[in-house]
Amino acid sequence: MLLSPAPPLRHCVRIARAGASGSLVRRACLPPRSRVAPTPAASASTSPLTAAQASRMQQAAALSTPALMAGYARRVAECNLGLEELPTLTPFIVEGKAVGQLKPNFVEQLSRFPDVFKISGPTGPSGCVSLAALLDTQDARTSAVARVMGQLRDEGHITGWRDELYPVTSGFYETPVMLVERAAAVSFGIKAYGVHINGFVETADRGVCLWVAKRSMSKPNWPGKLDHIVAGGQPFGVSVMENVVKECQEEASMPRELAMTARPAGCVSYTTISSIGLKPDVLFVFDIRLPESFVPEPQDGEVENFRLLPIANVAKLVAETDEFKTNCSLVIVDFMIRHGFVAPDAPGYLSLVKSMRTGDFS
Amino acid sequence: MLLSPAPPLRHCVRIARAGASGSLVRRACLPPRSRVAPTPAASASTSPLTAAQASRMQQAAALSTPALMAGYARRVAECNLGLEELPTLTPFIVEGKAVGQLKPNFVEQLSRFPDVFKISGPTGPSGCVSLAALLDTQDARTSAVARVMGQLRDEGHITGWRDELYPVTSGFYETPVMLVERAAAVSFGIKAYGVHINGFVETADRGVCLWVAKRSMSKPNWPGKLDHIVAGGQPFGVSVMENVVKECQEEASMPRELAMTARPAGCVSYTTISSIGLKPDVLFVFDIRLPESFVPEPQDGEVENFRLLPIANVAKLVAETDEFKTNCSLVIVDFMIRHGFVAPDAPGYLSLVKSMRTGDFS
Repeated sequence: MLLSPAPPLRHCVRIARAGASGSLVRRACLPPRSRVAPTPAASASTSPLTAAQASRMQQAAALSTPALMAGYARRVAECNLGLEELPTLTPFIVEGKAVGQLKPNFVEQLSRFPDVFKISGPTGPSGCVSLAALLDTQDARTSAVARVMGQLRDEGHITGWRDELYPVTSGFYETPVMLVERAAAVSFGIKAYGVHINGFVETADRGVCLWVAKRSMSKPNWPGKLDHIVAGGQPFGVSVMENVVKECQEEASMPRELAMTARPAGCVSYTTISSIGLKPDVLFVFDIRLPESFVPEPQDGEVENFRLLPIANVAKLVAETDEFKTNCSLVIVDFMIRHGFVAPDAPGYLSLVKSMRTGDFS
Repeated sequence: MLLSPAPPLRHCVRIARAGASGSLVRRACLPPRSRVAPTPAASASTSPLTAAQASRMQQAAALSTPALMAGYARRVAECNLGLEELPTLTPFIVEGKAVGQLKPNFVEQLSRFPDVFKISGPTGPSGCVSLAALLDTQDARTSAVARVMGQLRDEGHITGWRDELYPVTSGFYETPVMLVERAAAVSFGIKAYGVHINGFVETADRGVCLWVAKRSMSKPNWPGKLDHIVAGGQPFGVSVMENVVKECQEEASMPRELAMTARPAGCVSYTTISSIGLKPDVLFVFDIRLPESFVPEPQDGEVENFRLLPIANVAKLVAETDEFKTNCSLVIVDFMIRHGFVAPDAPGYLSLVKSMRTGDFS
């Protein structure tokens, strides 16, 4: 049971696509006896196992072709854009903790307010932006920064004001060093947290199907895109589990008791640098196995409809189209990896797994 | 469904341990109405759902106490020892690819063989070890390096010779640049790959139970430690899925058709620097849901016995003892995260998730 007793091999080596089964095998030029590969189709037909179980390996091979693997990777890459600008960002340090990163032009804006913001060293990773020493409580910082943000809004430098405050923190479980208007969060490069729930149904004949929402055309963000059955931001002051139960009720009319069977399944993370600033997101991922009898109903007018799609269809929509909201694609690929719908033998598997969690989330 | 519409909060903020339920809540000083937390126990008693489903949130809270979270983190840390030496290692570059990292004393050994090894720049990350330009095929490299390793073995510098060749590669799906004797793999800091299978049974009354193997006291490595039902190295020239099926048959007497229902579920990685060198391991993780009727049987004399333990017992063994082989603990924590037995609201959850995959695996 120890790692890698590699067989003696002195033959040439190649990466091959094995036979008609489409399974991808990392293979050396071995004697023929070593070439016997599992034949899931044959087993499935003679096995007492359910179709859904026995065909998983076969499904994984079918959903891990080079074209689909490249498609999944492309969608994940779309969640991580603009990172070539990372070396131009200046850390935002409060209470000795890195709580954000700022673009050069935002540093320049803040330098106009030396009673609140202290710029040390050069703009970029070797310098830093901090707060005036007098601002030594959460309330004092929140008020002083709010005053500056208000002026920048009035001058037109910050748009989309929401009157919602965002926690500024070095980690999800830390006490925030201050709170900042949501419209300024990306300018400060502050971490944002959310919850995404994979709602699935599994039957012997259809295998795993995922409930997919279509966002209303009237939504300001991502109108008409495909989405998870339930997903949302993580409001401050509410537990992650409470938030999941609340969102399941609000977004899909899910009874509370059913919603409470949602199971945490890890997290994904990604980072984008837009024209405004850095957006390092962390999504808590949940799975909920739904009974066939449950049909979600749009509740808050944000969803046009819900459809139950076989996982193979979902995978193709993710890999071959941009119909899904970008971060949903990432969460669906994570679901596929965890549930065995992506084959470890497919080249690109390990880098796909790695790409599920980028950046220094905490 | 967008990220984080944070509620307006201007109150003080604290991390609290909510009530008697033991659930951990990231919470601000909100008006009382926001403090309503899910009550899994009450729901379970009135719900038509199975006990195993309805109690998952409760189980997660019970298995995510600060003491247990600290225990899981400790076990993962034990898989990542000696990393303070990373800045002293010299990259091993072949065909322009980084394929390993060497300790200073091994670089010194290799410098005695300038016809095979080329040392450029200083010892450490800014220098590199490569191969003589004439060694431009896999076979030529393998032979020349084997000759040097043979001499180092004869001189007593390399011990535990196995006559097994290991692929030297920049990534799992790449063609190896050469093969090297397994006993020298850690000296070269080459990536090693393995498979670990979580064999579990889930019943309405007992919930999730994990089959746990006890390693034979006569094994040279980790004698008497607890282990997965099936785990093993990934031999070169065999697909990951073939290896899983083979190991399930060999190690637990699992019928082939049952073994083929094992589902890939991602990977974990960890890196240790021992007195010999760097050991960057990547484990392909699988889950297999076993029928209650299946009882594994030790087959190859390497296992003393198999026991089916409730997940709560396994979690405590992991967190509170060192009975499990170190890397098994990491794989079990990954299983617990994926199956919802660790609560996202527990401080340390995100860093625990992050610690499942360290290093630049590919």
